[in-house]
Amino acid sequence: MTPVMIKNIECFITRPDRHNLVTVRVTTDKGVTGHGCATFQQRPLAVKTLVDEYLKPLLIGRDANNIEDLWQMMNVNAYWRNGPLMNNAISGVDMALWDIKGQLAGMPLYQLLGGKSRDAIPAYSHASGETLEELFASVDKLLAQGYRHIRCQLGFYGGTPSALHAPENPTPGAWFDQQEYMANTVEMFRALREKYGWKLHILHDVHERLFPQQAVQLAKQLEPFQPYFIEDILPPQQTAWLEQIRQQSCVPLALGELFNNPAEWHDLIVNRRIDFIRCHVSQIGGITPAIKLAHLCQAFGVRLAWHGPGDMTPIGVAVNTHLNIHLHNAAIQEFIPRSATTDAVFPGAPIAKEGFVYPPEAAGIGVGFVEELALAHPVVYRPHEWTQSRLPDGAIHTP
Amino acid sequence: MTPVMIKNIECFITRPDRHNLVTVRVTTDKGVTGHGCATFQQRPLAVKTLVDEYLKPLLIGRDANNIEDLWQMMNVNAYWRNGPLMNNAISGVDMALWDIKGQLAGMPLYQLLGGKSRDAIPAYSHASGETLEELFASVDKLLAQGYRHIRCQLGFYGGTPSALHAPENPTPGAWFDQQEYMANTVEMFRALREKYGWKLHILHDVHERLFPQQAVQLAKQLEPFQPYFIEDILPPQQTAWLEQIRQQSCVPLALGELFNNPAEWHDLIVNRRIDFIRCHVSQIGGITPAIKLAHLCQAFGVRLAWHGPGDMTPIGVAVNTHLNIHLHNAAIQEFIPRSATTDAVFPGAPIAKEGFVYPPEAAGIGVGFVEELALAHPVVYRPHEWTQSRLPDGAIHTP
Amino acid sequence: MTPVMIKNIECFITRPDRHNLVTVRVTTDKGVTGHGCATFQQRPLAVKTLVDEYLKPLLIGRDANNIEDLWQMMNVNAYWRNGPLMNNAISGVDMALWDIKGQLAGMPLYQLLGGKSRDAIPAYSHASGETLEELFASVDKLLAQGYRHIRCQLGFYGGTPSALHAPENPTPGAWFDQQEYMANTVEMFRALREKYGWKLHILHDVHERLFPQQAVQLAKQLEPFQPYFIEDILPPQQTAWLEQIRQQSCVPLALGELFNNPAEWHDLIVNRRIDFIRCHVSQIGGITPAIKLAHLCQAFGVRLAWHGPGDMTPIGVAVNTHLNIHLHNAAIQEFIPRSATTDAVFPGAPIAKEGFVYPPEAAGIGVGFVEELALAHPVVYRPHEWTQSRLPDGAIHTP
Amino acid sequence: MTPVMIKNIECFITRPDRHNLVTVRVTTDKGVTGHGCATFQQRPLAVKTLVDEYLKPLLIGRDANNIEDLWQMMNVNAYWRNGPLMNNAISGVDMALWDIKGQLAGMPLYQLLGGKSRDAIPAYSHASGETLEELFASVDKLLAQGYRHIRCQLGFYGGTPSALHAPENPTPGAWFDQQEYMANTVEMFRALREKYGWKLHILHDVHERLFPQQAVQLAKQLEPFQPYFIEDILPPQQTAWLEQIRQQSCVPLALGELFNNPAEWHDLIVNRRIDFIRCHVSQIGGITPAIKLAHLCQAFGVRLAWHGPGDMTPIGVAVNTHLNIHLHNAAIQEFIPRSATTDAVFPGAPIAKEGFVYPPEAAGIGVGFVEELALAHPVVYRPHEWTQSRLPDGAIHTP
Repeated sequence: MTPVMIKNIECFITRPDRHNLVTVRVTTDKGVTGHGCATFQQRPLAVKTLVDEYLKPLLIGRDANNIEDLWQMMNVNAYWRNGPLMNNAISGVDMALWDIKGQLAGMPLYQLLGGKSRDAIPAYSHASGETLEELFASVDKLLAQGYRHIRCQLGFYGGTPSALHAPENPTPGAWFDQQEYMANTVEMFRALREKYGWKLHILHDVHERLFPQQAVQLAKQLEPFQPYFIEDILPPQQTAWLEQIRQQSCVPLALGELFNNPAEWHDLIVNRRIDFIRCHVSQIGGITPAIKLAHLCQAFGVRLAWHGPGDMTPIGVAVNTHLNIHLHNAAIQEFIPRSATTDAVFPGAPIAKEGFVYPPEAAGIGVGFVEELALAHPVVYRPHEWTQSRLPDGAIHTP
Repeated sequence: MTPVMIKNIECFITRPDRHNLVTVRVTTDKGVTGHGCATFQQRPLAVKTLVDEYLKPLLIGRDANNIEDLWQMMNVNAYWRNGPLMNNAISGVDMALWDIKGQLAGMPLYQLLGGKSRDAIPAYSHASGETLEELFASVDKLLAQGYRHIRCQLGFYGGTPSALHAPENPTPGAWFDQQEYMANTVEMFRALREKYGWKLHILHDVHERLFPQQAVQLAKQLEPFQPYFIEDILPPQQTAWLEQIRQQSCVPLALGELFNNPAEWHDLIVNRRIDFIRCHVSQIGGITPAIKLAHLCQAFGVRLAWHGPGDMTPIGVAVNTHLNIHLHNAAIQEFIPRSATTDAVFPGAPIAKEGFVYPPEAAGIGVGFVEELALAHPVVYRPHEWTQSRLPDGAIHTP
Repeated sequence: MTPVMIKNIECFITRPDRHNLVTVRVTTDKGVTGHGCATFQQRPLAVKTLVDEYLKPLLIGRDANNIEDLWQMMNVNAYWRNGPLMNNAISGVDMALWDIKGQLAGMPLYQLLGGKSRDAIPAYSHASGETLEELFASVDKLLAQGYRHIRCQLGFYGGTPSALHAPENPTPGAWFDQQEYMANTVEMFRALREKYGWKLHILHDVHERLFPQQAVQLAKQLEPFQPYFIEDILPPQQTAWLEQIRQQSCVPLALGELFNNPAEWHDLIVNRRIDFIRCHVSQIGGITPAIKLAHLCQAFGVRLAWHGPGDMTPIGVAVNTHLNIHLHNAAIQEFIPRSATTDAVFPGAPIAKEGFVYPPEAAGIGVGFVEELALAHPVVYRPHEWTQSRLPDGAIHTP
Repeated sequence: MTPVMIKNIECFITRPDRHNLVTVRVTTDKGVTGHGCATFQQRPLAVKTLVDEYLKPLLIGRDANNIEDLWQMMNVNAYWRNGPLMNNAISGVDMALWDIKGQLAGMPLYQLLGGKSRDAIPAYSHASGETLEELFASVDKLLAQGYRHIRCQLGFYGGTPSALHAPENPTPGAWFDQQEYMANTVEMFRALREKYGWKLHILHDVHERLFPQQAVQLAKQLEPFQPYFIEDILPPQQTAWLEQIRQQSCVPLALGELFNNPAEWHDLIVNRRIDFIRCHVSQIGGITPAIKLAHLCQAFGVRLAWHGPGDMTPIGVAVNTHLNIHLHNAAIQEFIPRSATTDAVFPGAPIAKEGFVYPPEAAGIGVGFVEELALAHPVVYRPHEWTQSRLPDGAIHTP
């Protein structure tokens, strides 16, 4: 096939809304241009440095057709590999190359990959509240929108917000009492099942806030309420404890949004310690490794529930959707409503209808990037407070 | 012993009732003729091609006495082995050869194999209903017939039948909501135990409809109701998850009707992941491999519950019975009433009396085949829709 | 994307040369036609029945774009799954659908899948001889053609050809003495290394002819000669013995041409009992499952060496090549020269140059099918004797 | 089927030659009589007591057709089970019942079981000598008779016979020096391979004379000489050490002649610690359990090499042969020439021709029992000296 030479690679950071979004643009000598998501909201400038200073000179003049070769090359080119920065930078290029291939083929990405295995992917959205009443209102709103799968959280990650800014806890960050959180969460599930019965699929995110044996306790306590899944019940450095959870509880487990190294997921999948993989596609290096990961999961009966937070570009949202429509072991998609401002910068991204996300039908990934609008929303640098959750004794909380 | 040369091999497809039944006839130069079941209801014509075009020319002129050698030869003759088509074709011949041997010996098959280990085999039959009331009526009818083991299903494989043909679900196939099914099934068991107490042996077929962790959940929820066994709680590609079920639940498990490759059952038996093997005798290649499988199971305390659906010939039903009467580790037999039309084509097959099936006493397998009647009920071709069960998102449901 | 409706599906058997080759043609309402390989040389008519009578009516009117959905549907549509016949029939359709997709995209298959990871794949070809001198001549010829990887066999699968037709062994099939074969093979390796040194990559095919502990012995004896790989050192039913080989020998092992059920390969890959997977792509159901298998292997460091015998269509040869060019863990390709007659029926298939196979560059799979020529070479039916290899005592040899 | 009532059961001990042979006769009300082997040469009177006093009254009046049921009943009837006495007594009845069934069917036993899987079974015979020259002469004699598999022993079980009766070793029994034995045996193998090359299959019996780590040593030292198998390298109480042998040596191992409890063989087969099972059929309870054991072995790639010593009746020899002809995983048969006196008492037993044993073709087991001649050779009671092998320090040698 005629080579399609890479002419330029650019990296853009834009903040149309609350998040710093990172986009990579690959331009070719055939007039086809592709865009990829490289969003690492907490460190966007370093991702941009990687793309501009390292990937661009490495790739210019190479054939954009050979995605597999370019991905392998990018992956080993710095000798030290993986990590959230390098993977996001690679992802930006990788998605852009797939976007180009789709346009060259005149096919939406899901078609290029082998076509549909489903019409649409079920989506779940986030309900929350400081009280059960607030939570119920939040759930009702999503039910009215057609969602049947809803992630439910009581309080700020289950903690006690009133204590958060207490004078006796001057350390910036969140006071977090696990015992209170666990009691509240069990109570929340009881109340939700009482009110909504078994027709609602309830999801819940522990957000890695428990110590290992507490995770076993919660998994066991929530079992009777049959959650659709419990997310991030353990932090990445403690996943070996999943074995103990599995011996005592059949609560479905979803994990993976923090992973960016295959060593983090391999054994969990192979030993069937999780039911759903939740990797963030750009964090693991893009579409190319995501397909391989999906097929690994398929061989072990693990299903896909890609991370779909607010801090990813609509390009990333579209990529999730293409993967979900094509890959037979996709189960569900986290879906966060976007602002009109964001959609103006990135036109064409999928939306949720009646609890399902349908694929874009334009060629490639199908999401545009309006450079002028993007540049109108410059990056805002702020130290990130929310990940400084601390225990009452002032210790950084990494259970 | 004087050779008994194979003179001809024929394959017949007949549809006396709702099923395409495949029968193989082996004729010998000593005037003895045998019949075997090769029924693969969904692909009968391909089985016939195998018998007519490949097994017949391979076997004509060989000694019908040497079943073991002929089975080994058929099994490797195409180089590639196993699978539902080749095994069914081989089964047709294998059973016919045992039928011939029994006639030459003047003994019913169970006697040839070593005689009785029991007088009759307990049978279970199917009760079902869209509502608990319908189900109770169905159970009562079987109790009145003497059955003490009854397979109970609520709804269409537990799904919501009203949604099956709903206009918003135009994809051919069945809408299936696992959470609803699980809740209904637990409720069904509760109601059955409340009404019938502990004198009834309740069986239930999940029909491979759950995702792995849901299977663990159901096994755990049903444990207090002590089913006789739960059938096909996982599909063949996910049986490695049985390990997790076994760690959390002592519900007896039966599996195997879909198996046609020893690699599918070996580890389940050796690691004692199941309590009952449910292989379909013609699907694994006939009587010869069934005896070996039974003895493997015996060494690991796994008992026999051969698949006994409507889509097998009465010859296959009789073979199940002979095996059950002889093999000491036979536990129970699925038994489906047959129409008079079917019994007219295949006279002599066993019936259930007071919940037990007794062996035929004629020499060989003991079931006749009336060719003229068979030919009067030609095969009906229909694409098979019922195996196209789909999830609400339109995906083919292969958990 | 605009649906591309399947208008017709046809199955052709042709024997341009020594093999019955089975081709499936899928015609669409958009004027694009695809071809796939469904060659099961020993049972071609049964594959044709499956395609004509079952897959065709199931698929006509469906959207050819959705390969993943159609593959899943074909795989479960008969309820019972897998096996060499069903997988080959499905493969014929699956490859044709990928051929269509490639043509619709205007891309060769390897480009559609994600582009090159290499320029060409190293090929190995077959050298053999009744004596070392004959073998050396055979090796020299291939070296002159540029091959650096050569499969070397001494005698008929290592047996004693003179005994094959000996009057005292009238049973059809081959007399096979394992001890003699093992001694000869060790001697062959010693002689090859002495003559050719370490520049030649020597491969060898045991062709499943050894009993398990003999396989351990041979693996241990051949270790000092560092073969590139030893193929099929055990038959599919004895692969659990690979554990013992691995404990005693570091000879690289290749296995899989006989597999057609995931249960046969899963544990071998996951436990790293083999170094190369050798599945026959049409035997496992086509391109769709081959990609998934490749990615599973990649996660465990197992590399690809697809089966490439004479009894596959040039379409299958091209598919192997596309997969090899794209998939990064492809290692080597078995390659058999084809006759001009075969290439006239199937124009455009890849050839080997200087020991490498380069990909076709036409859109889709890139191999044509000239129906008139195909029909001029009708199928020849012969009972297949060569798989009736027997031991001196007359037993069918299935170690 | 018409019941065939057991009218009488008798037990005969005869010593036509060097061995006390035990035969059971079952008489029925249909005029058919069967005979079985119950030979426990070292304790014949106790076997006779069991048959006469316990099995006879238990079985008279029962249906001889139902072998499976009668075997199960005999097996549990004394509450405590297994052991060489009870198993031999049961075997005598079990074989007689199969003999009856074969006669009722008008078929030789191998036909009843499912027919041939081979024409004849390769046999091995015993060569021995105090010196290599004597051994060579012994081997040459067997080669001239057509044997290609020969068990070779140097010295009296490898020990030093001159020390046996030394005045400084007054304890009755054999002085046995393992180190000398091991050195001699390795030297024997070297000499045999040097003289006979690789065309001879060499077997060797360690007769449980080594301490465990010595067994590992010998297995490793003999590996280069590729014995067909090494027999009884460890005594039954030390078989757990086989795991260590397997890690270091690929010498094929045969074990089992001393087993009479399933717990002795189960793990060895399941973990593939042995390559050949050598059980003595009457020691494990007869034909009924032997078939099950064979099928268990088949599932793990373990082959059959039934014990065939001088101290079994020709009925037992014939049973071994029937099993070998029918069971596909039979590998080889130990075969000891019999005296004319013995064959006069038990006419019709198989003989070896050109290294193969062919099956009897008469109905049933096919071996007669001439009561008058049997009674003419009464049992001789002698304390058994040869199993009193002692170490130089006077300790009974049970490594």
